[in-house]
Amino acid sequence: MEALRARLGRATAAAAEAGVDALLISPGSDLRYLLGIGGSSFERLTCLVLPVGGTPVLVLPKLEQPGYAAVPVGELGVEFAPWVDGEDPYALVRKALKRTDRVAVADMMPALHNLRLREAVGGDQVLAGPVLRELRMRKDAVEVAALRDAGAAIDRVHARVGEWLKVGRTEAEVGADIAAAIVAEGHELAEFVIVGSGPNGASPHHSVSDRVIRAGDVVVVDIGGPLAGYNSDSTRTYVLGEPEFEDVRETYAVLEAAQRAAVEAVRPGVTCAEVDAVARRIITEAGFGEYFIHRTGHGIGLDVHEEPYIMGGNDLPIEPGMAFSVEPGIYLPGRWGARIEDIVVATEDGVESFNNRPHDLVVLPA
Amino acid sequence: MEALRARLGRATAAAAEAGVDALLISPGSDLRYLLGIGGSSFERLTCLVLPVGGTPVLVLPKLEQPGYAAVPVGELGVEFAPWVDGEDPYALVRKALKRTDRVAVADMMPALHNLRLREAVGGDQVLAGPVLRELRMRKDAVEVAALRDAGAAIDRVHARVGEWLKVGRTEAEVGADIAAAIVAEGHELAEFVIVGSGPNGASPHHSVSDRVIRAGDVVVVDIGGPLAGYNSDSTRTYVLGEPEFEDVRETYAVLEAAQRAAVEAVRPGVTCAEVDAVARRIITEAGFGEYFIHRTGHGIGLDVHEEPYIMGGNDLPIEPGMAFSVEPGIYLPGRWGARIEDIVVATEDGVESFNNRPHDLVVLPA
Repeated sequence: MEALRARLGRATAAAAEAGVDALLISPGSDLRYLLGIGGSSFERLTCLVLPVGGTPVLVLPKLEQPGYAAVPVGELGVEFAPWVDGEDPYALVRKALKRTDRVAVADMMPALHNLRLREAVGGDQVLAGPVLRELRMRKDAVEVAALRDAGAAIDRVHARVGEWLKVGRTEAEVGADIAAAIVAEGHELAEFVIVGSGPNGASPHHSVSDRVIRAGDVVVVDIGGPLAGYNSDSTRTYVLGEPEFEDVRETYAVLEAAQRAAVEAVRPGVTCAEVDAVARRIITEAGFGEYFIHRTGHGIGLDVHEEPYIMGGNDLPIEPGMAFSVEPGIYLPGRWGARIEDIVVATEDGVESFNNRPHDLVVLPA
Repeated sequence: MEALRARLGRATAAAAEAGVDALLISPGSDLRYLLGIGGSSFERLTCLVLPVGGTPVLVLPKLEQPGYAAVPVGELGVEFAPWVDGEDPYALVRKALKRTDRVAVADMMPALHNLRLREAVGGDQVLAGPVLRELRMRKDAVEVAALRDAGAAIDRVHARVGEWLKVGRTEAEVGADIAAAIVAEGHELAEFVIVGSGPNGASPHHSVSDRVIRAGDVVVVDIGGPLAGYNSDSTRTYVLGEPEFEDVRETYAVLEAAQRAAVEAVRPGVTCAEVDAVARRIITEAGFGEYFIHRTGHGIGLDVHEEPYIMGGNDLPIEPGMAFSVEPGIYLPGRWGARIEDIVVATEDGVESFNNRPHDLVVLPA
């Protein structure tokens, strides 16, 4: 509760600093960060109005109000403004605002609502993401602990992948078992399960398919989900017996070196772009640059993907408490792919990894 | 495929009719309706650009492209415009457009993308919902069949609720069993499971809680999810033995009469507001008007909630193929609540219900 009060105060302070008159926050992880409850986003408007120098007001459908009963409104100084079908919720937002020269809306607010708010509120509409990321991307001790727990839980799932990943089973069958284990290890749900076998491993955002696992397949397993709200996300690459292709082990060694070097490069003051460059340089110098087709990582917390993004062009210096993935990959179209992903957090003088399973290509029985 | 080609053609025709130069469609049910694949919405832009009189272009992250391999691009005349991290996807959208005086964005497009598109594209930005709803709210025969299948599947789950809803169990335990049955009956997932027992039944959007079911509890069970993409959504109200309160049976009879009358009122030419009024009048005349705190229903299809909304003020005349819920409720705060919900479709001369379980208060052993 104390944490929530501090966050609300810091959010409006950051808004003022950014020259924004108010933040308009729809359901999702931003709302969860500020009120402790993320709510659900439907066609009916729910919107936390945070005016700089004014009273926070939660505009919400009356029938959703019981879902927010746990919000300590008195202690937080938040007022409810419930509305019923037929009333105009956008007018309630307008009423809760003082100045409206420049109003910031949550990045994930649907157009359905932000276009109507633009009309009802007037003034410039900008994104709240650049304001809130200043808070959200620096995790406090409680958040770091939550990410550490989530990382340990997904490590326990990776430790058991050999029980399910077997020749003759489909990716979908393997994925269903992994999903059940993700939940059994304490996650609220299996947010994503990638089992990319053989050529499917060369598609970074493959999910699962009916492809049957064969001896010699290289298999990318990228899994995670929220645990007490904070997400896990870890990738290991497996092989069933001897790899089908002769270039697997040598190429994988390049990837492993790149991932390790990028993690070791993380410390306060180094920029996101520099961490990306460390991994990319090693992969490129080995001749695989064109097969590393995504950024090196993404921030993680209440969202699986959030700021900071570890990519070229992002000159943001890393600070203590920033948590993100380090996940280079090499993808050889039509043949095979590999990725290694750990979630790490910058500490006062270096880096801590939340994922601690071995990084080698994991050989399972064929 | 033929259906998709027709939909793309009708979408741009409807856009032209509405004075819109192009539709910009992000991942979600609108994209699924038009391309057969809904995709996923992340911080990286995926956007189907449908210019009036121009070539449809799917702007998408290169690493998401394999997920769209099943789109029959040749037959549909759709071009892919993949981009990689570091490139500007909004400029690709601009490039795919011809005129940009008035551009419509999908209702569910996140502000993150529509604010950037507004800047990159210029012109007036309006919502695509009013254009697409002209297509999506009139279901074709294939869609009606899909909704009928989904309705039958959720009816089979309601038929078994007595196996799980028992005195001494928590709402969450009952809900977990129901969720498993929803999936076992063929749904892709249990999108929502409401088990509102006793006073929790008076909160229409309650989910589940650790409250233990007691003898005499009235319990609202509102469940559904997508089956082959199209959603089920049905509510029945149960009681464990004799109701705790003396007013339950008489009040429930009012609700049952209201729900039946509203369903019977559905036919082409009647407005959505009139259907709402039929239910509301019966409930109000019995003295419970202030306890019926939501609209009578919502359209359903690829989304659980979509147009048309069955509510006061909506003078849209019902047409054959429109499918929606009819779900009045009576909610007595702190005591109990009840709701009856069927999904129905308007036919050429009347109405067909996709949910066909009895409407009575279902008495289970205490």
